[in-house]
Order: sequence, then C-alpha cells, then structure tokens
Amino acid sequence: MRMYDIIKKKRDGGELSTAEIEFFIKGYVDGSIPDYQASALCMAIFYKGMTERETADLTLFMANSGDTVDLSVFGNTTVDKHSTGGVGDKTTLIVAPVVASLGCTMAKMSGRGLGHTGGTIDKLESIEGFNTELTSEAFFKTVKKTGLAVVGQTGNLTPADKKLYALRDVTATVDSLPLIASSIMSKKLAAGSHTIVLDVKYGSGAFMKTPEDAQDLATEMVKIGNNCGRNTSAVITNMDIPLGNNIGNALEVKEAIEVLTGKGPEDLKTVCISLASQIVSLSKGVSTEEAKTLTRNVLESGKAFLKFKEWIGAQGGNTDWIENPELFPKADYQYEIKATENGFISHMDAEKIGICAVILGAGRETKADSIDMSAGIVLNKKTGDEIKVGDTLATLYTCKKETFINAEKNFLDAISVSESKTHLLPLIYKII
Amino acid sequence: MRMYDIIKKKRDGGELSTAEIEFFIKGYVDGSIPDYQASALCMAIFYKGMTERETADLTLFMANSGDTVDLSVFGNTTVDKHSTGGVGDKTTLIVAPVVASLGCTMAKMSGRGLGHTGGTIDKLESIEGFNTELTSEAFFKTVKKTGLAVVGQTGNLTPADKKLYALRDVTATVDSLPLIASSIMSKKLAAGSHTIVLDVKYGSGAFMKTPEDAQDLATEMVKIGNNCGRNTSAVITNMDIPLGNNIGNALEVKEAIEVLTGKGPEDLKTVCISLASQIVSLSKGVSTEEAKTLTRNVLESGKAFLKFKEWIGAQGGNTDWIENPELFPKADYQYEIKATENGFISHMDAEKIGICAVILGAGRETKADSIDMSAGIVLNKKTGDEIKVGDTLATLYTCKKETFINAEKNFLDAISVSESKTHLLPLIYKII
Repeated sequence: MRMYDIIKKKRDGGELSTAEIEFFIKGYVDGSIPDYQASALCMAIFYKGMTERETADLTLFMANSGDTVDLSVFGNTTVDKHSTGGVGDKTTLIVAPVVASLGCTMAKMSGRGLGHTGGTIDKLESIEGFNTELTSEAFFKTVKKTGLAVVGQTGNLTPADKKLYALRDVTATVDSLPLIASSIMSKKLAAGSHTIVLDVKYGSGAFMKTPEDAQDLATEMVKIGNNCGRNTSAVITNMDIPLGNNIGNALEVKEAIEVLTGKGPEDLKTVCISLASQIVSLSKGVSTEEAKTLTRNVLESGKAFLKFKEWIGAQGGNTDWIENPELFPKADYQYEIKATENGFISHMDAEKIGICAVILGAGRETKADSIDMSAGIVLNKKTGDEIKVGDTLATLYTCKKETFINAEKNFLDAISVSESKTHLLPLIYKII
Repeated sequence: MRMYDIIKKKRDGGELSTAEIEFFIKGYVDGSIPDYQASALCMAIFYKGMTERETADLTLFMANSGDTVDLSVFGNTTVDKHSTGGVGDKTTLIVAPVVASLGCTMAKMSGRGLGHTGGTIDKLESIEGFNTELTSEAFFKTVKKTGLAVVGQTGNLTPADKKLYALRDVTATVDSLPLIASSIMSKKLAAGSHTIVLDVKYGSGAFMKTPEDAQDLATEMVKIGNNCGRNTSAVITNMDIPLGNNIGNALEVKEAIEVLTGKGPEDLKTVCISLASQIVSLSKGVSTEEAKTLTRNVLESGKAFLKFKEWIGAQGGNTDWIENPELFPKADYQYEIKATENGFISHMDAEKIGICAVILGAGRETKADSIDMSAGIVLNKKTGDEIKVGDTLATLYTCKKETFINAEKNFLDAISVSESKTHLLPLIYKII
C-alpha cells in the first residue's frame, strides 16, 4: 500500500477502505508518512469529503492511536458531555452532579480555556484545594465513591488527532466537517464513556456561526458516535449571547452554585436541564419527558447540590466555599459599564465579550499565560433587554486596574442597540 | 504575508496576487515555507486551477529562482524547441541544423532519457567524441561559430521547479494543467531563447493520451510563453505510434542522417519540417508557407546536412561516422520478430514499444542505469500496414542476447492486428 495511491484515490473522489485509513493513521503517527502527504490528503478531503463509513473508521483509528480510558468496570452507566466551546459555559459544573445524583457515572476529562472560550478545569481550580490532577487510582476511587470526577487530560490520548490537527491548523484544512467531527469524537471515544451527549453551540461566540452549520456538525458527530458503538446525541444551543450572566472562573462557579440551589439565570438552567435530561434519557433508557422531570426534581430537592458538594470535597476542594460562595476571593477592582443611549440590546457579540474577559485576566491568549481566577464580567443586561442611559450594562472585575479602558471599549464594541425589541434566536435549536 | 492565508485564498477559489506567488516561490526555495504547506497549496491548485496571470507569474518566479542563461548577445535570433517526450523522437537532431542553416541561433540545453522516452543528450553521445558537457565559454563560442550547440543541463536551473515537481510527484498533484505547463515553461524561460516552439505529443506513447488534452496543455504553454515575452507556438503531433522507424540511440542518429541526406521515413520528415518551419516563421517573421519552402530547400540542397556535420565536429564528434554511418558500432545480436497472422496493424502501443527498447538496453529504468548505445528496434511495419504470416515486423538489436524473449513478448503485446485497414490518427493535429 502506498500513501500516494491513497491521496490520488481521495483526490479523484473515491472512498478509502478501512485498511487504507488504518495505513494512513498508523503511518502518520509512526512518522513513516510525512506531513506533506498528510496535508495533501487533508486538502483532498476538504474538497471531496468522506463517507459515513470512512469518517467512523478515521475516528476509531485516531481514538486507538494512543492511550484509551477503560471504564468497563462501571458497565453501561458511564456518560460524557462535550461542549464545542463558548463564553460563560459552566454547564458541566451543573450537569455532572445532576446526572450523577440520578445514577449515571461521569468519569470525565476536561480541558483548559484558550482564546475567548473558558475551560472547565480552570473553573474548578478556582475552588481552593480542588485537585484536577488525580492519579488513575484516585480518579477511579473517586468515581466509584461519588459517581463522578473531572480531571485534566492525562496520558498520551489520541496522538494521531493531536498531530493531524496541528498540521491542519497551518494548512487551511481545519474547516472540513468530517475532519472536525472525527477530531472531536476521537477524543470522546478514547475517553471511554458509553453515552455521549454533545452540546453543539451556534452563534457569534461559537465555532459554528449558524444553527444550520451547527446542525451539520452535530449530525456528523452523532453518526460517528453511534457507528462506533456509543449512545450519542446532540443538543444544539445558542452561543450568540454568553450563557448565563457570569463570565470568568470563580464568577462562573458561583453562578453554577446558584443554579444548583434553585436560583440562577433561566437560560443557563434551561440548557443544563436539556443536556442532563438527554444524558439521563439515553443512559437510563427513559423518555426525555421522564428524564426532564427527574432532572428538575434533583435540582429542586437539593440532591444535585449535595452531590456537587460531595464531588468537590472528594477532589480536595474546600466545601466551605461551596456552602458560602462569599468566601471566593474577590477581584481588587470592579467597574460598572453604563449605557449611553436608550433602546434595546439587539445583539451581543459573544466572542468579543469572551475576549473582553481575557483582557481582564480571566483567560489565556497563549497556553503559557496564567489566569486571574477572580477576574471576569457579570452581565446586567443581555440581548433583548431594554436599556436606559445610565443603566449598568455589566460589571467588570480584575486585579489589573489598567485593563478597564481596553475592556470597556471591547465590551461596548460587542453590543448593538436598536430602537425596538428584536427577535431572539432559539436557546435550544434542535436535539439530534 | 502568511502562507496559511495564501493556501486558504486558493482553497476558496481566489486569485493569488503577484506578490503572493512571489512570496510562495521564494519562501519555498529558501526553506521558510515547509513542504506540507506547499503540498496543500498544490492540491488546492489541482482543484481550483490558476488564471492566465497567476500561471505566468508562477512560471516567471520559478524561472528566476536559480541560474538563467543570458543569450542576449545573440539578439532576437535565439530559438528553442521542446518536446513533451516520445518514442523514436529524434527531431532535435534534424530541426537544429535545419534552422541554424537558415540563420536561427539554437543554443540549447537538452535532457537524458528516462523510462520509455529517450533523450537527445544520450543520442548525441552515441557519436564518438561528442561532448555534451561544454564549459559556458565553449558553449557560447560554438554557438557563435556554427549557430548551434546542444549541451546537457548545467548550473542550478529552476530550483523552485525541481523542488516543487519532486513534491508534486509524491502528493498526487502532478496532473494539474497550470502546474505542468508552468513547470515545463519555467525551464524554457530560464534557458533564455527568444523564440520557443513546443512539440506537444499525444497518444499511447505521450504524457497526454488524447489530442484534446494535448491541445489544452499546448494552449496553456503558448499563453505562458507569450505572456512572459517570448515568441511561442506549439505543434501537436502524433505519438500514438513511434516517430520514424528507428528506436535506440545510435539507430536514431542514423535515421536523422537519412532525413538530412534526403531519405528517411515520411512521418519523421513531416514532423521535422513542421517544427522547423514554425521556428523559422516565428523567428524570422516570414509566413509559414515561406518558412516551409526554406526548410525543404536546406534539406534537399544538403545545406542542413553540412550544418549538422559542422555542429557535430564543433562539439568534438567524429564526423567520419556522420559521413559513413556504417562506422557506428553494431549490436552483438539481432533478432527478427515475425508476423504470426495475416491482416493490418490497427494499433501500436508506443509506450510499450519504448519499454521494449529499454529492455534491450537502449534506455534507463532508473537514473543510475547505463545505456547500450547500439541497442534498439528498427520497425519494418507500422500502424496501417498490411502484414502476412512470416513478414518481419521489426528487428531487435542488443548486446544482451537474453533480453530477446522478454523484448519480443513486450513487442507483440504492443501490437493489435485487425482484418481491415484502420483509420490513422493525424500526424500533425494542430498548430497553436
């Protein structure tokens, strides 16, 4: 078998066999296939696509290219949730204890934030003592005891995807649906859960700008998951505005606690209930309606909050902070952004608001940057809200006072105001 | 400027600016642009093509990426001829002295044979003493004195094309018209002649299998040449059968001498007159008809043969051999292939016959192979000829007797026989 023939076959619109995809992935990881052949193939795939079978094969070979997590000891109860990334997205902090309190097992690996989107691991580390670097033994012990644990990515997971993604990133071959979907799903497959629910976001703060594009990606990923023997579904949710009101690590943990204690913003609550009930429905084999009722019950009864506290404690976090969120360290400086005109907020660019939070210190521009856990934004007004001159639009928090000028400018740039109330995009666009 | 943006622009069907193409070629040659980005761009060009302007820019930057030959001392009289390669193609040996005896200056670089096609340099080296490795001074001196010289490629000519072609060869991006055309034309531009006539071959022994494909390539190359300030035209000729009757280095020189002395096969004579008169017409600004008459005159008067002898002598070749071709060393063994059925030859696969000559020792399978100058094939029958059982189809020549079995098998495989005479493809398909 020759890589040349594989490139030519795909170039001419052919369907690669399972053996050809295996040859490519193994050869690319072991270095016998050079980058310049892999990038030519990726460009051919960009134009010619991949069939459902090819995409599933590619995902499986990438998933098995390195370490994989064996969760078989937990039977079919294991569940995972993946978000394509957004601003103010603290859903894992809520969904994980909800589904765990309903008997699902969430043994999850999460990422750190980069650019305008945050990461669950960073958020969890804003809690004093919380340890995201458990040994494999401690991870399994915690999961066995509490039904959930969330750690950073460890081991040599999906090296094929890492290498291929880095190559695609510099050869303009990222924007290919089968390549995007297989990249995400290879990591989910390697992470070992039986049930996978995807939160595919659309809008100004998301990778996919339109609900239609998000739906295409979601469909592709759900097919891969099911073709690879996992229970998979996707919820397509609105990331045209930040989710909830709080952006920034400690601020988001506090908002998650609000939802877990029966308060918190409606949009965040709705998305969390949708994701959690999808997971419960798929994993437990109950109807979505029934799963929704179960989800609401554990939120209202406080059972989910208790599970949250148990989990945080099990991973070394200071549960006093959970009981009393006032204990989270506060930013040295805060600044209120005021409205300078009357009208309605017609649009908020979620990506720009995410970048505004990064400017304040809440995120990283490069992997090496450190994070100010107390920094961030609390939104007082969101898209659709009426505003009057002098109203507080948002409060900025930081330990670096000099960032306010730039942050405010970016924030105001992100906001459009119109004379009349505009139509809001759906919060849950579709479930696949 | 970033290579990423250049790839993405072409990927999405955009037209690259002159500055972008310059950035790519310069960066690729100096190593600042890696192979994996260049191959991604080539694949995007494979799908999206290049405009006439982009192709001319690409050709010019490749032509100027290394050494170039400055022939300005000869004014506008310099001419070049390029063949896309075929079997039995000894036209340069005839056309060069014909046009030189009509006042054109042919200061030419030629290649060696590889695979089923021969090379002019190998053919010339079958003449005792002929030196194809002249110093620059000797080259110019010979051209000044005799009006022509033919040498092997020297210096660091078109390194961009060399590097890019090697990359395309292993990434399935060779078959792109603008890339093929710019690759060929960059070498012609660097070689410095003012007038360029291309012999674009079509059929079983050619790179382009159909006359239509050959016409597309010819059109692309002629546009490049004219856009880059050279007088350029192309003759599309038949390579569905070998040209002339002799295949193999010394055998081909002997056949060239036949044509130059008023004998030789009609097809070879016709192609040579067409190419030579194209060159003379373009270079001298006379009509094609007039150029054709001039060409015929120098062939019939023996003036072209005298020029040929002068040239061979000027480059150190033994002119006794030219006067008396019987002096060329003969192959140790010869073998006649006999017809085993009655009918008409309906098709000869020229590529397979070329490979047959390689088996006999007349060509190279790899660059390191050495050549048996006396080896080859003399065809007694060609496509369209009637044959009877026992007729000699061809005579094989070699110094390695053991090759006859394999060579005969290959030869017979290459020939199709039918009951009635078939329609012949045109020898000169079109002049562009």
